[in-house]
Amino acid sequence: MAIVVQKYGGTSVGSIDKIRYVAQKVARRYKDGDKLAVVVSAMAGQTDRLIELAKELTPRPDPRELDVLVSTGEQISIALLAMALKDIGVPARSLLAHQVMIKTDDAFHKARIVDIEAQSIQKVLDAGEVGVVAGFQGVTEEKEITTLGRGGSDTSAVALAAALNADLCEIYTDVDGVYTTDPRLYDKARRLDRISYDEMLEMASLGAKVLQTRSVELAKKFDVPVLVKSTFEDSKGTMVTKEDRDMERVVVSGIAYDKDQAKITLLGIPDRPGVAASIFNVLAQENINIDMIIQNVSADGKLADISFTVSLNDFDNAMRIVKEKGDELNARDVLGDTTIAKLSIVGVGMRSHAGVAAKMFNTLSREGINIMMISTSEIKISCIINEKYIELGVRVLHDAFELDKPGGQVG
Amino acid sequence: MAIVVQKYGGTSVGSIDKIRYVAQKVARRYKDGDKLAVVVSAMAGQTDRLIELAKELTPRPDPRELDVLVSTGEQISIALLAMALKDIGVPARSLLAHQVMIKTDDAFHKARIVDIEAQSIQKVLDAGEVGVVAGFQGVTEEKEITTLGRGGSDTSAVALAAALNADLCEIYTDVDGVYTTDPRLYDKARRLDRISYDEMLEMASLGAKVLQTRSVELAKKFDVPVLVKSTFEDSKGTMVTKEDRDMERVVVSGIAYDKDQAKITLLGIPDRPGVAASIFNVLAQENINIDMIIQNVSADGKLADISFTVSLNDFDNAMRIVKEKGDELNARDVLGDTTIAKLSIVGVGMRSHAGVAAKMFNTLSREGINIMMISTSEIKISCIINEKYIELGVRVLHDAFELDKPGGQVG
Repeated sequence: MAIVVQKYGGTSVGSIDKIRYVAQKVARRYKDGDKLAVVVSAMAGQTDRLIELAKELTPRPDPRELDVLVSTGEQISIALLAMALKDIGVPARSLLAHQVMIKTDDAFHKARIVDIEAQSIQKVLDAGEVGVVAGFQGVTEEKEITTLGRGGSDTSAVALAAALNADLCEIYTDVDGVYTTDPRLYDKARRLDRISYDEMLEMASLGAKVLQTRSVELAKKFDVPVLVKSTFEDSKGTMVTKEDRDMERVVVSGIAYDKDQAKITLLGIPDRPGVAASIFNVLAQENINIDMIIQNVSADGKLADISFTVSLNDFDNAMRIVKEKGDELNARDVLGDTTIAKLSIVGVGMRSHAGVAAKMFNTLSREGINIMMISTSEIKISCIINEKYIELGVRVLHDAFELDKPGGQVG
Repeated sequence: MAIVVQKYGGTSVGSIDKIRYVAQKVARRYKDGDKLAVVVSAMAGQTDRLIELAKELTPRPDPRELDVLVSTGEQISIALLAMALKDIGVPARSLLAHQVMIKTDDAFHKARIVDIEAQSIQKVLDAGEVGVVAGFQGVTEEKEITTLGRGGSDTSAVALAAALNADLCEIYTDVDGVYTTDPRLYDKARRLDRISYDEMLEMASLGAKVLQTRSVELAKKFDVPVLVKSTFEDSKGTMVTKEDRDMERVVVSGIAYDKDQAKITLLGIPDRPGVAASIFNVLAQENINIDMIIQNVSADGKLADISFTVSLNDFDNAMRIVKEKGDELNARDVLGDTTIAKLSIVGVGMRSHAGVAAKMFNTLSREGINIMMISTSEIKISCIINEKYIELGVRVLHDAFELDKPGGQVG
């Protein structure tokens, strides 16, 4: 008898009919004999409606109270799903964060789970009931309600699976798995049967929004196998799991892109220790994350140019700060560019295969795509290119690394 | 520095604008220096919308899950009101039942408060914050969410006032106080400045729906003065308080009526001990409350007729049960009548004044209103009459006991 945690996202429970459908799905699984905990998100659109309501009241709603407000969304879903289950004869019990004791820190809107007391949910499963658990929310040591940020229900599910020592965590969503690249961008994109935690982490952080990054980190940390599947279609899905030999044989597993990028360049700043740090310090104080950085020293060795990327959301704020800092440093100029995008290849096979970067750069250059910045990790190479070439770049890399073939390009 | 508990009903927080208005009202009071706990209901219509949603899923939603569902209504209100308060510079903190520890039994939909741990809310008030507390909901020893039934927020407020040993509990609503009778029925109805707990209890149980009966019982038990006032109009309101000499001088304080009544009569049943009990036992098993009862014995002393009243809601169910029972007892016939209503006069002054009943009966008879059943308590006389005479009955009694004059008919 396996212990399984299932998670259904907002579109999966977006209407009474869909909740009924999910209940049937859970019921079949329950009758197969598995012990089930089901994590549910708010009905699609509900969280946004609640935030709208708060914004109607005040442009800057109090963070604590906003979490109290939006966490009602999941409470509604779990009550309805538990009702639907009992209605078809499946013993079930809805559970809120303070009942399961999903303990988090007190960072409202982006709280991190610090612990789950498995006893209460374990008791429910042992009693033969399906535990229907509110995703996205937690509770602090002081009983304050918190939320985990967009996509937080994925993290709730994986954390619960870890606490229950579950055999599997199934994430049901509106896509049928993880693809070699975005199928809307390239119709040759292929669903992956399996992907490693590290690859999934890179894909998620590079803009492929199938799972919340934090959920993959937790899955890796506690070695929870995560199966991403479609709620309404029948498909094998993609298993996110630990790395094995087979995975290493594939050079590139996926191609990610992120258009939500902008570049800022400071021209002619003093080339002495601490200057770059002073710029990044003020940005960090404003909670602006820097991604890639390039620094060039001018011919005479006294002045430097520095470029870096930020997310598009932070661009206006970052430009304001950097311009002030530029004045202070007597920079020759501060330039902003919002027409860039990040194109990345990901694969654990890179570790053991040479020439991957060269192949990526050659492929892009053959199409006349200029690379402005490069960053690499053990299992990822990212290039900043002009946004208008992003679709072309995805397609030519997908072809070059033969991602349309099962197993891809095998080294 | 007084400790005051305020309660705002669903119509008082029925929109973002109204929540803003209530926040201003609370802010003024806070700035006067009072320590404030504010109990809030769900936004008007919200509870019904949630119940609709559940009913769309299944005609008989699970009671436990229904309480999880509908309690989100108050959670939304308290979050929004706390936001609105902080937005205008008043320190505030929303508090759910499990945070205040409003402990109840586990009778879902109609739970009774058994205890409130005053420490947590006391801590909030001592920190100079306004505690914004979810009405209508509680939590059991096992952390289950419960609700207190329609009007339950009144009870939350009074119970909180008792736990805090508050100086006053103010109930803000869409009427400006308690009236001598329903002003929609008779325009000479007069707002009472004061009314005793016992009178208020009778009025409430007789169908005057200003306060939940249970809240008045609690107020009486813990001697909490309750001021009923209008949220949006400026009015002195009505103070519900313990009895004093002045109150006893007034013979009749108010006239209540209840159209939600039906009468069932069994004709020709055996006149022997235990027969009536056997009928009422089966009704009690189905949770049907009996109000008035009349039994007549026939001329030969062997057969009896028995009549009793139930609420209109229970009528169909009660008729089915009584007909079965009637067959069993060889009753001559079972008759139902849904065209009746209950008309009552209430006043602590009755205790010390003779002839009140006679005056009531004479007044009704002068208008040709037939009295079918009578029941009395120390401070109340109720008559069952034909529903069509109810408005007339209210008016003639109001005039006869001079309720339009401050102080009424003084004995």
